[in-house]
Amino acid sequence: MNNDILQSALAEYFAPWVQALGLKVEAGAPESVLLRLPQNEQLSRVGGMVCGQAMMAAADSAMVLALIQHFGEFRPCTTVQQSTSFLKPLSGQDALIEARVTRAGKALAFGEIDIRGAVDGKSVCRTSTTYALL
Amino acid sequence: MNNDILQSALAEYFAPWVQALGLKVEAGAPESVLLRLPQNEQLSRVGGMVCGQAMMAAADSAMVLALIQHFGEFRPCTTVQQSTSFLKPLSGQDALIEARVTRAGKALAFGEIDIRGAVDGKSVCRTSTTYALL
Amino acid sequence: MNNDILQSALAEYFAPWVQALGLKVEAGAPESVLLRLPQNEQLSRVGGMVCGQAMMAAADSAMVLALIQHFGEFRPCTTVQQSTSFLKPLSGQDALIEARVTRAGKALAFGEIDIRGAVDGKSVCRTSTTYALL
Amino acid sequence: MNNDILQSALAEYFAPWVQALGLKVEAGAPESVLLRLPQNEQLSRVGGMVCGQAMMAAADSAMVLALIQHFGEFRPCTTVQQSTSFLKPLSGQDALIEARVTRAGKALAFGEIDIRGAVDGKSVCRTSTTYALL
Repeated sequence: MNNDILQSALAEYFAPWVQALGLKVEAGAPESVLLRLPQNEQLSRVGGMVCGQAMMAAADSAMVLALIQHFGEFRPCTTVQQSTSFLKPLSGQDALIEARVTRAGKALAFGEIDIRGAVDGKSVCRTSTTYALL
Repeated sequence: MNNDILQSALAEYFAPWVQALGLKVEAGAPESVLLRLPQNEQLSRVGGMVCGQAMMAAADSAMVLALIQHFGEFRPCTTVQQSTSFLKPLSGQDALIEARVTRAGKALAFGEIDIRGAVDGKSVCRTSTTYALL
Repeated sequence: MNNDILQSALAEYFAPWVQALGLKVEAGAPESVLLRLPQNEQLSRVGGMVCGQAMMAAADSAMVLALIQHFGEFRPCTTVQQSTSFLKPLSGQDALIEARVTRAGKALAFGEIDIRGAVDGKSVCRTSTTYALL
Repeated sequence: MNNDILQSALAEYFAPWVQALGLKVEAGAPESVLLRLPQNEQLSRVGGMVCGQAMMAAADSAMVLALIQHFGEFRPCTTVQQSTSFLKPLSGQDALIEARVTRAGKALAFGEIDIRGAVDGKSVCRTSTTYALL
């Protein structure tokens, strides 16, 4: 599935407030996608750090795209559980979000998302998610 | 601490993108706060349901206010871990977000957040969080 | 459902290693159960504190009983996700484990488990879980 | 640090009930350790599947060893949070548990643990953890 289709899925399936993150599809592989979260003052709290809320939202969004990639089409699904660890702050650079499907069964799908600095490559946020396939 | 002070903390300490949620402080108690997330098409994905990203962001934000309430002042802190379960969809009503400090030590604080429909009172989202106190 | 039936379910459905925890059913209510984890040197690491592994295992087990209570019978199910926060250490007393079903749908059930000291009543461990109903 | 030292740490720092898992150190790398959980009827519930409680306990234990590996010595620490996803059942084979330190700061350490079948190599359980360094 090419990047344009995934990019257009962001516009089609996501709330406007989530689209305001400005996520860009960088690459897709069979079981994963790579997104970029451009630097944006709207997402920064005091101190210039990207807020954790934006990272959790980006992780959730990236996983939906990874599932589209996995199934070859959009399938209705809903997030059941999301667990996020914040390893360190991120500031002064874009973020890269890599989402990977770790298992997709009939009723449930699991995935993991890594967020790292686009410049220094250091992981700042790690998320695991469970989706119900409807 | 009165509601106006907590409300102004939302403007002072949060990223503009998070402020766009439009959270309103309804009440504060010694170890908890109650916020309202007004209905807002910007937060809805296809089908009119409030997106999970908004609920995770609201939960995280509510907990920061609960910590302000607990300590009697803003203390620098950072989210270390957030785990969220999505019990059922929410649509057609405001959400009420209740955040409670379950334990605050010297270095770490723990909390739990319940999100429920403002009209039907049903829990839709349950979050537990860990904060590092800086 | 009376306590004896729940107690016998512990023997019937759980691995011998889990049974070695020695959990005792104290009480059941329509959506919850209360278990006791008796003090036991086998569960203590250096310093006399109950090991976290025992608390996670007790939480998971208690939730299975709460689901039996909820459905009025044992239904095959499997843990999908468990998130546990360790608020403070527990030592020198039994633990009380209270599991509550927060939502049970057709395919998924959610619950929360509180573990507290049987003597001082202080919460030491909070768990949220997701189960798939088979 | 050689495997014998890590193996002896299991006997020294863990509760007898955890030692009953029979974990064996297979290998250590600078930021990770690999353990084996041998097949054991004591850990199986009805149907011959390894119980989730054993997997959560093995994950937590493996991470303590990975931290010993990381620091070059045992440092007092306590689990703050553990989130586990159960991807699929495991039966009829040993389990391999691989724990990796994803970040170790002054006060907190983060890690992730993969559990897979020793024969088929398929991931069955994924855990992320947060530790407080005391």
